[in-house]
Amino acid sequence: MENGWHKTSIRVRYKDTDRMGVVYYGNYLTFFEVGRAELMRELGFPYSRMEALGHSLVVVEAAAKYHANVGYDSLVTVLTAVTQLKRATIRFDYKVISEDERLLVSGYTLHACIQPNQKPSRIPEEIKRIIERKIPSID
Amino acid sequence: MENGWHKTSIRVRYKDTDRMGVVYYGNYLTFFEVGRAELMRELGFPYSRMEALGHSLVVVEAAAKYHANVGYDSLVTVLTAVTQLKRATIRFDYKVISEDERLLVSGYTLHACIQPNQKPSRIPEEIKRIIERKIPSID
Amino acid sequence: MENGWHKTSIRVRYKDTDRMGVVYYGNYLTFFEVGRAELMRELGFPYSRMEALGHSLVVVEAAAKYHANVGYDSLVTVLTAVTQLKRATIRFDYKVISEDERLLVSGYTLHACIQPNQKPSRIPEEIKRIIERKIPSID
Amino acid sequence: MENGWHKTSIRVRYKDTDRMGVVYYGNYLTFFEVGRAELMRELGFPYSRMEALGHSLVVVEAAAKYHANVGYDSLVTVLTAVTQLKRATIRFDYKVISEDERLLVSGYTLHACIQPNQKPSRIPEEIKRIIERKIPSID
Repeated sequence: MENGWHKTSIRVRYKDTDRMGVVYYGNYLTFFEVGRAELMRELGFPYSRMEALGHSLVVVEAAAKYHANVGYDSLVTVLTAVTQLKRATIRFDYKVISEDERLLVSGYTLHACIQPNQKPSRIPEEIKRIIERKIPSID
Repeated sequence: MENGWHKTSIRVRYKDTDRMGVVYYGNYLTFFEVGRAELMRELGFPYSRMEALGHSLVVVEAAAKYHANVGYDSLVTVLTAVTQLKRATIRFDYKVISEDERLLVSGYTLHACIQPNQKPSRIPEEIKRIIERKIPSID
Repeated sequence: MENGWHKTSIRVRYKDTDRMGVVYYGNYLTFFEVGRAELMRELGFPYSRMEALGHSLVVVEAAAKYHANVGYDSLVTVLTAVTQLKRATIRFDYKVISEDERLLVSGYTLHACIQPNQKPSRIPEEIKRIIERKIPSID
Repeated sequence: MENGWHKTSIRVRYKDTDRMGVVYYGNYLTFFEVGRAELMRELGFPYSRMEALGHSLVVVEAAAKYHANVGYDSLVTVLTAVTQLKRATIRFDYKVISEDERLLVSGYTLHACIQPNQKPSRIPEEIKRIIERKIPSID
């Protein structure tokens, strides 16, 4: 974790590529998923635990800009940060970087916290405190 | 349905291809899924209804032989048949064919019927009767 | 095609769902791909032909808003329109609708036209003319 | 590497799961892909290098037996071994194991070596020697 940005590495699989020889555009949303899961794990609050406690984060928005491509067997780094934390929503931003430090994809996802009955709920206080303490740039 | 073989068509998506320019080998198991779902729908017993009634078919075996390749935008036909029906298991066989009638992939999946508590259960009689009536070659 | 919006249907596969029981958020980008491929086919210019002629449309931006969920075996409709056509870029907008007419996901993708050498190229005039003729609301 | 079995770990992503809450059956073929890629990397001959040298390994057979399930965020181990090495074909066997040492899936893939012109070719001698030296149980 550096300035609030968590780093995780992903090896590009054959399955991730398409016939253009590069990662299929939709698969970066899976890479984003890995990024935020590993960020939450490092914060001490794995998403699987959050769900087990009855809180799900459903995606309400996702966006990506594609700057450059990578192909099979590349090792990419996903940088993930919480960039907004409101009563019932949380936003993650992502940068996917190649081994030679090129910016491949940037983007964000916005999530709403819901209960098992699908009703909106507040982000649990325990998680809010963890995020606010460990990511000081968030206000 | 011809001699017990149900036909359904699938258009190959960019997403389905890999950097070799052809359908990724694992994606044929998704094509198999489409084949058996459409077969069950034609038999008047969609798999979604079967699950709604508390019976799931979990995969216990899957196998495929790869004879030829196809690429993006190809229209393939999945031929699916029930080839074995026992008390608690059902087997589907598949042939995936190209537009110019080449055999691309052949394979099968074997499924066990389970209840919501994950315990094995008999294939529901209603489904057995439908299959036995409509697919006479099964004994 | 209605007011420039092309309609195509997609049946939700088991493979498309995730453990929340609904379509995984990244898979809507595959649905978008199907939408624009079928739009181009109806315009008489399948994307596979465009690539065969040496013109690729690489994605430079993608965005989606998630309004509601659907689960396994749902039949969704993807509405797709060309909403912007410039010298070297083209934008598609999408609405994914459920069988009971709920808006599930809306979004867009922006594409740049490139040549086999990866250099930007103009959208081929033949395609521009087709789009401008068939989609009068584009200026 | 232990007795010729190479071990690699994979964290189950949300994307890997289906509405039953477990890894979708076809996704294990992607896990197999990761297993054989990492085995070849450890042998000093990454598959990406093999392809760069003009040798591809196309899948001619794949099979899997499903023994038990795992869900989101599980850490599975893929054990991979070369179990057959002929003039122009190579077979990999796989065992996917849960963190609590349950056998989840076992299977194999059989590959043929082909040249860029799609013609069958011998497995490169350099690779044969590496495999035969490091995996003594192969004859």
